[in-house]
Amino acid sequence: MATLNSNYLKLKAGYLFPEIARRVNIFAEANPEAQIIKLGIGDVTEPLPEACRTAMIKAVEDMGDRATFHGYGPEQGYLWLREKIAAGDFQSRGCDIDASEIFISDGSKCDCGNILDIFGKDNTIAVTDPVYPVYVDTNVMAGHTGEANEQGEYEGLIYLPISAENNFTAQIPDQKVDLIYLCFPNNPTGATATKEHLQAWVDYAKANGSIILFDAAYEAFISDPQLPHSIFEIEGAKDCAIEFRSFSKNAGFTGTRCAFTVVPKNLTAKAADGSEVELWKLWNRRQATKFNGVSYIVQRGAEAVYSEAGQAQIKALISFYLENAKIICDKLTEAGLAVYGGVNAPYVWVQTPNGLSSWDFFDKLLYTTNVVGTPGSGFGAAGEGYFRISAFNSRANVEEAMKRITDNLKI
Amino acid sequence: MATLNSNYLKLKAGYLFPEIARRVNIFAEANPEAQIIKLGIGDVTEPLPEACRTAMIKAVEDMGDRATFHGYGPEQGYLWLREKIAAGDFQSRGCDIDASEIFISDGSKCDCGNILDIFGKDNTIAVTDPVYPVYVDTNVMAGHTGEANEQGEYEGLIYLPISAENNFTAQIPDQKVDLIYLCFPNNPTGATATKEHLQAWVDYAKANGSIILFDAAYEAFISDPQLPHSIFEIEGAKDCAIEFRSFSKNAGFTGTRCAFTVVPKNLTAKAADGSEVELWKLWNRRQATKFNGVSYIVQRGAEAVYSEAGQAQIKALISFYLENAKIICDKLTEAGLAVYGGVNAPYVWVQTPNGLSSWDFFDKLLYTTNVVGTPGSGFGAAGEGYFRISAFNSRANVEEAMKRITDNLKI
Repeated sequence: MATLNSNYLKLKAGYLFPEIARRVNIFAEANPEAQIIKLGIGDVTEPLPEACRTAMIKAVEDMGDRATFHGYGPEQGYLWLREKIAAGDFQSRGCDIDASEIFISDGSKCDCGNILDIFGKDNTIAVTDPVYPVYVDTNVMAGHTGEANEQGEYEGLIYLPISAENNFTAQIPDQKVDLIYLCFPNNPTGATATKEHLQAWVDYAKANGSIILFDAAYEAFISDPQLPHSIFEIEGAKDCAIEFRSFSKNAGFTGTRCAFTVVPKNLTAKAADGSEVELWKLWNRRQATKFNGVSYIVQRGAEAVYSEAGQAQIKALISFYLENAKIICDKLTEAGLAVYGGVNAPYVWVQTPNGLSSWDFFDKLLYTTNVVGTPGSGFGAAGEGYFRISAFNSRANVEEAMKRITDNLKI
Repeated sequence: MATLNSNYLKLKAGYLFPEIARRVNIFAEANPEAQIIKLGIGDVTEPLPEACRTAMIKAVEDMGDRATFHGYGPEQGYLWLREKIAAGDFQSRGCDIDASEIFISDGSKCDCGNILDIFGKDNTIAVTDPVYPVYVDTNVMAGHTGEANEQGEYEGLIYLPISAENNFTAQIPDQKVDLIYLCFPNNPTGATATKEHLQAWVDYAKANGSIILFDAAYEAFISDPQLPHSIFEIEGAKDCAIEFRSFSKNAGFTGTRCAFTVVPKNLTAKAADGSEVELWKLWNRRQATKFNGVSYIVQRGAEAVYSEAGQAQIKALISFYLENAKIICDKLTEAGLAVYGGVNAPYVWVQTPNGLSSWDFFDKLLYTTNVVGTPGSGFGAAGEGYFRISAFNSRANVEEAMKRITDNLKI
């Protein structure tokens, strides 16, 4: 009989967001009149920028004429988009990244998972704790771990705790790891990394032949001009890093779907015969074989992000969400909670009061204020005792949620 | 040092389409005045149906208002699309397929490759020869094969030859295989499978605990009412088959990107502990973890395929390409060539004349008629001596190409 990938059976059944949905449903059924406000999932709520919509309508019209019709595009993405990204996101910040090193995709989540296709099975892998669950789950599915313990930690993964005690900066490990996932501005904590901190990681990676998988999906929220937006702003990063970027959070593309991954051409890893091979070649082959490019229409929408109008519109979007984050930080502080993040990131990371567990605080918040957030423990064992509040919502909802919390949450 | 997936290094460097492009470029540089007509790659050329464009423009406009804005959609696709597919493509043909068994994706190529994620490493795998190269290459990349021999056949794969000798129907193997890739109407040969032939495969699969990976990307081209469009028209197939479908070829979505995969709920495979587990659960988890759904805009376009206008428009598109195929078959026969396929498929499979190799015939056709096709040997060792001509082009180009062949190709 055909066999299945038994690694899937190691995955914890109760994935974070389905469990949240389950608890919210129970509450909503018992309290049908309650006006629930969801500040849980990191999904944008505001309209897509007009520049992107105009470009997409034009692109749909292109598809109606055989002279401007677009069939299969390059699996790596159209060069006109890749060149705008290289210039707008990298060269403008002094990063020596070429269009050929940029691979357009339909999502960073996909790329973060798919990137494991090109790596060997014998790498030692490190993640921060708490962490975006996709990094962990895709490693479990690929057979890079053993079973999970009671805290949900998988055997074989190296967890690097980040918490208030270390100012939410993952300490550089004293052991040798081959692949390291880093995400800054961080999901879920909203923490940022300075150039010095990333330089220390790059130095470590270069010294150990490690590769940093750098998730910069939230870079647009950086308001501090001293903070790096890309790992490639760091000296030496092209020799040791791959970067994931997305239009989801800067331009509101969560439902439109476009992202990209940067694989520098001189980045190598070791083959079974001991030779060093460019990872760019493998990723290019992977994408050409298992992917067929992003919709022409969507790529035209992404291109418009780099127009003058597009840049102004995404700046306004980001400012709007950051103002939400500021309101959340201010009001939660007023309510007596200790808050982190929320300045250069759309996430506010809250310490639960009175030693409540993350899930107990989730229930308390839901039942006393009808506000939904995300329990920190869902992002990893070291997230226990924390809680994530997302700034992605309307101003009215954010203000109403914060009013309920300051009025009703007894701490 | 981090290691890479050395299985990638087994892949043959000269992938079919890049090699075609290389030869065409050399010719074009030497003959800049030549009017080259490409009947090689299976890419559509005609405008996207109006119903789809109208729906997508409306969807882009939806994204401009926060009341109708769509952020993250279900990773499995929107239910309104899945329900239309279930009704329109399956229930209407007597197949007991539910919307929950349909997973919307951005491409069949992706799904055909990604499906291997959920299977074990120890399955015996069979492909037809010739075959769509993605089935083979993704197995190589996943480490399911050894090295390739001189004919490009990978150690460990079972090749089932299809040729004029067996009427292009893969013979059921006498050994036990666990996973079998079947594609009907066939790419590249244009051959079809009768219900009886597919029933024999389903019976074999059920007797052996095998799973059929059925690629029906070209089902819309079936003009013979006796031929099945889906493997699920066959008794018992829900116990042993997964089906890949696409909007690329029926509605011209090669550049718009939408497809779907059907994983029946009662389909199981064996876990390492000997238990049987539903593959639906694994695929659902795979998609939820490594995919974020197809663009809302594109899904609205796909939904319009099932409207009355959409159905009429795709029927016209298919008729147009099938008429092209008929012209190709007629003219090539007139030129003295033996042709197959092209009746229920957009591909005409030509026997090369005078014992020419596939690549020699490619060069001969290019240099004497400036027409580009695809060498059969690029699809597998048993494709040697054959040549694929695609019906995806304008009427004028098809007629001109055929005129050049009947006028100039000396056989």
